[in-house]
Amino acid sequence: MKQPRSKEDLILRGEEYFLPQVSVDCVIFGFHEGVLKVLLVKLKQLPEWGLIGGFILKEEDPSAAAHRILKERTGLKEIFLQFLNVFGDPGRTNTDTWPLLIGSFNLKAAKDNWLLKRFVSLGYYALVDFNEVRPMIDRPNESCEWFDIHEIPALLFDHKDILKTALETLQLHLNYHPVGYNLLPEKFTMPELQSLYETILDKKLDRRNFQRKILSFGILRRLKEKRKGVAHKAPFLYSFDLRKYNKALKEGLGGGW
Amino acid sequence: MKQPRSKEDLILRGEEYFLPQVSVDCVIFGFHEGVLKVLLVKLKQLPEWGLIGGFILKEEDPSAAAHRILKERTGLKEIFLQFLNVFGDPGRTNTDTWPLLIGSFNLKAAKDNWLLKRFVSLGYYALVDFNEVRPMIDRPNESCEWFDIHEIPALLFDHKDILKTALETLQLHLNYHPVGYNLLPEKFTMPELQSLYETILDKKLDRRNFQRKILSFGILRRLKEKRKGVAHKAPFLYSFDLRKYNKALKEGLGGGW
Repeated sequence: MKQPRSKEDLILRGEEYFLPQVSVDCVIFGFHEGVLKVLLVKLKQLPEWGLIGGFILKEEDPSAAAHRILKERTGLKEIFLQFLNVFGDPGRTNTDTWPLLIGSFNLKAAKDNWLLKRFVSLGYYALVDFNEVRPMIDRPNESCEWFDIHEIPALLFDHKDILKTALETLQLHLNYHPVGYNLLPEKFTMPELQSLYETILDKKLDRRNFQRKILSFGILRRLKEKRKGVAHKAPFLYSFDLRKYNKALKEGLGGGW
Repeated sequence: MKQPRSKEDLILRGEEYFLPQVSVDCVIFGFHEGVLKVLLVKLKQLPEWGLIGGFILKEEDPSAAAHRILKERTGLKEIFLQFLNVFGDPGRTNTDTWPLLIGSFNLKAAKDNWLLKRFVSLGYYALVDFNEVRPMIDRPNESCEWFDIHEIPALLFDHKDILKTALETLQLHLNYHPVGYNLLPEKFTMPELQSLYETILDKKLDRRNFQRKILSFGILRRLKEKRKGVAHKAPFLYSFDLRKYNKALKEGLGGGW
């Protein structure tokens, strides 16, 4: 499929390559040292950070576009992206962002330049293993970094709303889906799993209630080995029972009818 | 907002009114006499039925468009439409549908007519009270009818896939959300509720297991009155406890953390 040859080509003639007035934005969550993180990008020319986003090629499926964009911008591939929602407020991109970007390339965009039109954005989200991500992409004008969910900088357009929707969706999913396989190492302790839930929910949970409830779903396996290097009362290690985990992912934690 | 003055205007100059290459499709489910139904429309000129669909006005929010389209085509308003997914296979509208429709109006559409381009469709779905719907809209060239989920006729484009996705989503929701408030009358018997679940799941459920599980969610209230006009063993009537129903709708049937 035909793609723009340069940033200039994209800005001035993007409509030759992409579907008009539709974009894609990806919220990428990771978990590291007890903190929920979000992957953001920033173009040197712009004051605000943004979600990882882009456009859909003329003959491309939207989810294929989301994967391509993610790979281009972060090197990440084979990620389980889930469709989040459509974000289509008519005024959502009426900001200085595009004029600033276009101006920074010393380009003169026509009044009807494709980027200055309204865009409906398709939102996706994913949970990824923080340790497998190398977000530094070798582009001189672009930064790509993880941010603590509590320290999100100013974001472009309505990206704060998209992020909020993704976080609320993730919090809801904790109520009826198993979560953690892509976020935790293969073996983990009960406090580590609880810490993941607490950081997503942004609240403290009672240790005993958490353990009782999470064990009742039958998705965990307690391993024979314990965490090493701990002097006293070494904690048990757990791993997910993938068969049951995937069943619960499909049917919900309460099981099917 | 500016709207087309006629079908001809829509066909020949739709891009003056609507977002290009984006459409909206609504799957409307109803429940009647133990059967799950879907609302479909048919233009006289076309051989196939279709979901209730249309386009997004230039300055319109996508969900506002879905509500407007539904109201225009069926008289239905104030419906709780939920976003389903995006359907964007590049070849999904490469069929005879648009050329047939355009030809039936004795119009000559240019090769680059807006309808002949690729469309990404935003899918919505809703559960509605069958008894409150008057799907017959007074349009000479259009039919709007309920179809039994087991007797769906040939559908336009990828509408069969959209319907399948909506049904699978509804089936999954039975596992972790309460369902029924919009589909059943205010008071209902346990067999009527079970019948709703069976028709959505398309399988028989054990009577006692169903009753035990559904009561365990705490969303039902058993009423003092029984179903009248039944000679022996008149069945108890139930209604939903709306406070608990709405809580479970938000948090999932298993409750929050």
